[in-house]
Amino acid sequence: MYTLAARCARRGVRQAHTVLLMRHGESVWNLANKFTGWHDVALSEKGHEEAIEGGKLVAAEGLKFDIAYTSVLKRAIRTLDHALEETDHMWIPVVKAWQLNERHYGMLQGLDKKETVAKHGSDQVQIWRRSYDVPPPPLDESSEYYPGNDVRYQYLDKKCLPFTESLELTAARVVPYWQQVIVPELKAGKNIIIAAHGNSLRALVQYLDAIPNDVIAELNIPTATPLLYHLDDDMNPIPFEEAIAPLTGKYLGDLDAIRARIEGVKKQTG
Amino acid sequence: MYTLAARCARRGVRQAHTVLLMRHGESVWNLANKFTGWHDVALSEKGHEEAIEGGKLVAAEGLKFDIAYTSVLKRAIRTLDHALEETDHMWIPVVKAWQLNERHYGMLQGLDKKETVAKHGSDQVQIWRRSYDVPPPPLDESSEYYPGNDVRYQYLDKKCLPFTESLELTAARVVPYWQQVIVPELKAGKNIIIAAHGNSLRALVQYLDAIPNDVIAELNIPTATPLLYHLDDDMNPIPFEEAIAPLTGKYLGDLDAIRARIEGVKKQTG
Repeated sequence: MYTLAARCARRGVRQAHTVLLMRHGESVWNLANKFTGWHDVALSEKGHEEAIEGGKLVAAEGLKFDIAYTSVLKRAIRTLDHALEETDHMWIPVVKAWQLNERHYGMLQGLDKKETVAKHGSDQVQIWRRSYDVPPPPLDESSEYYPGNDVRYQYLDKKCLPFTESLELTAARVVPYWQQVIVPELKAGKNIIIAAHGNSLRALVQYLDAIPNDVIAELNIPTATPLLYHLDDDMNPIPFEEAIAPLTGKYLGDLDAIRARIEGVKKQTG
Repeated sequence: MYTLAARCARRGVRQAHTVLLMRHGESVWNLANKFTGWHDVALSEKGHEEAIEGGKLVAAEGLKFDIAYTSVLKRAIRTLDHALEETDHMWIPVVKAWQLNERHYGMLQGLDKKETVAKHGSDQVQIWRRSYDVPPPPLDESSEYYPGNDVRYQYLDKKCLPFTESLELTAARVVPYWQQVIVPELKAGKNIIIAAHGNSLRALVQYLDAIPNDVIAELNIPTATPLLYHLDDDMNPIPFEEAIAPLTGKYLGDLDAIRARIEGVKKQTG
């Protein structure tokens, strides 16, 4: 679908800017089938292996980076560390930003996904998980999952701290961070690697590729699979021929296997 | 020796500021018995284990940190990562600074220690290794070990980049970094963890504890052994009773075992 556009774009435009996105590997709560959100859980053994494998794919592509960004959640940080280790970039600066955190899952955080479906019905859960602008019910300030009770957010204005988030609300912090913090580094000529989460990366690629709200809600980004973007000087993506629609960036690795994983995530839903 | 001073100091002075120092674990070149300096080698398997063990000691002490510093060399970075993981501090900012690098070993970098002794004599090698102000012979700009040929130093003024360093020259970058970058963070109320190298940490504790040049040259800081300092508001150490002279900070762990390791490092020399 983007083949012609890709050819046209690539003919005249310098591949000025490189951004590599990577969703974290499987966490111990993915494994336990719990809603995670901002809760800080570690990678599972498989998650570590996935991240190392993803890092090796980045290394094989020969990419060079000048600065890295990640969330303040250890599953993304550790995934980034693996990628930096495999590509011999451990020395580059790493910026940890809460703005790249996973979507806050509100009252659902910590709950078992199947039990939540049994209690609220799969239609309702599907709406909370995949609608663009309907957040799950908010938690309250006394909850252990309220970010205001977490030392890592102690210096933030409480107005920044969510009680729950939709994808729309997630985008409302991810996109400004991209525009205000990351884009200036790209424009300064730096190549960038970002390790983040399913929904914070959804918000970012929606912005980059101008994906409609109903399409982005159905988009699955597979874990620990490097997703490469080339951007022109106006920060518009230069589409790859190998891109899997609706994205214009390309995944590194075996595209057939990646397509199968994307479909696999879809089937898990609900 | 510091018991009385420690008691006096601790009576009146608020334990205002916490700094935890940690030398990296064993590297693959420690194991191969090569001079390493600024060359970027990984931790050995034992080095990873040491760093995890050191991290557990920090966790057991219940210390909390707000910001971390390390060199741009992976053996220190990875040691820090282990400590942050074991103490659940992966989310804190990590600053990677070349000023905290190991001493540059000049022409000796990459050479086998025993072969170097055979070639130059153990007296000469001992002078290069342990004198305060005699650096090893410099390398030249064409050497793969010259920092000017390493992408990570590409934006630095070449005048900053060493061809070789004595401990004195190492201190000439470590101490200003402490004074100008780390002290302001301490004065802002932050608790700090620093992972670095045998000689950059020697330079730092020499400054903190006002250790004479001939004494510091003989001081061994064991690998991956947490060394805790409490500083007053003037950034002077508040001596611990458990300190092992000439340091006033205290090592975490089994002090008898640590004393034995300090002596063990001494015997390896030459």
